[in-house]
Amino acid sequence: MTYCVALALDQGIVMLSDTRTNAGPDSLASFSKLSVVEKQGDRVIALMASGNLACTQAIVARLTEGVGFNAGDREPMTLWTVPTMYDAACLVGEAVRQAFLRDGEALQAQNYQFDVNFLLAGEIARSGMHLFMVYSAGNFIEATQDTPFLQIGETKYGKPILDRVAKYDIPLEDAVKLACISMDSTLRSNFSVGLPADLLVIRRYALRVGAHHRMGADDPYYAMIQNSWSDALRAAYRALPTPPWPLI
Amino acid sequence: MTYCVALALDQGIVMLSDTRTNAGPDSLASFSKLSVVEKQGDRVIALMASGNLACTQAIVARLTEGVGFNAGDREPMTLWTVPTMYDAACLVGEAVRQAFLRDGEALQAQNYQFDVNFLLAGEIARSGMHLFMVYSAGNFIEATQDTPFLQIGETKYGKPILDRVAKYDIPLEDAVKLACISMDSTLRSNFSVGLPADLLVIRRYALRVGAHHRMGADDPYYAMIQNSWSDALRAAYRALPTPPWPLI
Repeated sequence: MTYCVALALDQGIVMLSDTRTNAGPDSLASFSKLSVVEKQGDRVIALMASGNLACTQAIVARLTEGVGFNAGDREPMTLWTVPTMYDAACLVGEAVRQAFLRDGEALQAQNYQFDVNFLLAGEIARSGMHLFMVYSAGNFIEATQDTPFLQIGETKYGKPILDRVAKYDIPLEDAVKLACISMDSTLRSNFSVGLPADLLVIRRYALRVGAHHRMGADDPYYAMIQNSWSDALRAAYRALPTPPWPLI
Repeated sequence: MTYCVALALDQGIVMLSDTRTNAGPDSLASFSKLSVVEKQGDRVIALMASGNLACTQAIVARLTEGVGFNAGDREPMTLWTVPTMYDAACLVGEAVRQAFLRDGEALQAQNYQFDVNFLLAGEIARSGMHLFMVYSAGNFIEATQDTPFLQIGETKYGKPILDRVAKYDIPLEDAVKLACISMDSTLRSNFSVGLPADLLVIRRYALRVGAHHRMGADDPYYAMIQNSWSDALRAAYRALPTPPWPLI
């Protein structure tokens, strides 16, 4: 399983992803689900993936290195060369469809579903900052000021805190905190989502990576979030009044 | 959709269920998913249901009134007559299997899945207090001191707070509070779960209903939980330190 969350805010983008993959409970492994394309001053684009690892790795290779799928092209378009973020989303969608054409039937024959999802975020010079979610069908939606966050993978456990707190105008520092809380809620309720977690921050107009940080169980900030959030929830719960009706 | 949660604790049982049913977003209705069988001094048994409403209503009618499925029996066993809670769980499982035998194929022909789940809890004199979850296959599990809560329906949004706080030795008053928080997290993230909510409390050894309360949006206690919990979460989130790394 996977949990990835991304927030597109006034000040920039925050993305956080776990690194656990599993093919059954006795086959856990750690793979980064975050890929970053950075050409300082020109573009910084990040891609987070959930779903079948063989498919998502093939798609990422196509998108970042131009290999696979369309080997006939001399110079295939990649995330290094697309002119705008919207074109980047179209390119991701196209790569997803090519992966389905190549692998979908063979997966089906083994009773596996073709199921991949991507969060694509970043900024290309003069074309604005964007956050997209690309589905298995290759179509995509974009985050807006009304709904400034998108999630893929095991999304439900970490959503209540986002629903309550995620707003377009919160500072990037708060968004990092929020993403960590959302991740921690997911980790606690689903053992197939696991540390370390990959964090990426991109400040608007910076056209470079603002922070790229891997947080394991021993990361002091993540450990503090884990402990403090649990304590805070318990304290908040204790502080609420008990019901006014008699419980005979 | 449905959300039902039940806690089996040292002091007794707390159950909370929403009342929304939907057949598509333009077909919402309110139906109680909680049935109570109470013979004071002898037994109090409660049943909460999720899944296809036609199936669950038929099963509840079989279990509480003895009608349907086994019309041949002169005096079919019901929740009013089963000798122990374990027998009650077996009876619920048997009714689920009979419903599947009667309706499963016809549902399948209309592309509906037979999908029902029950939480069964209560106490029968001299046979102890129990909480069971009965699956579509008619088999069941029982809550234990290690995992004192069970959920059916849209379970994920409301699970993180239970994972952190639900313990066997918390007082019933706190468990009511906890169930309300868990319900509120679910309501906020899934519009197909809706108020009013039905609350039931059964104190151990009381052999009668301890509280049976319907909470609508205008219920002062539920409204207080909604507002205070949101405020408490936001305050807790604001109070956490921001990350120590520079976000360039």
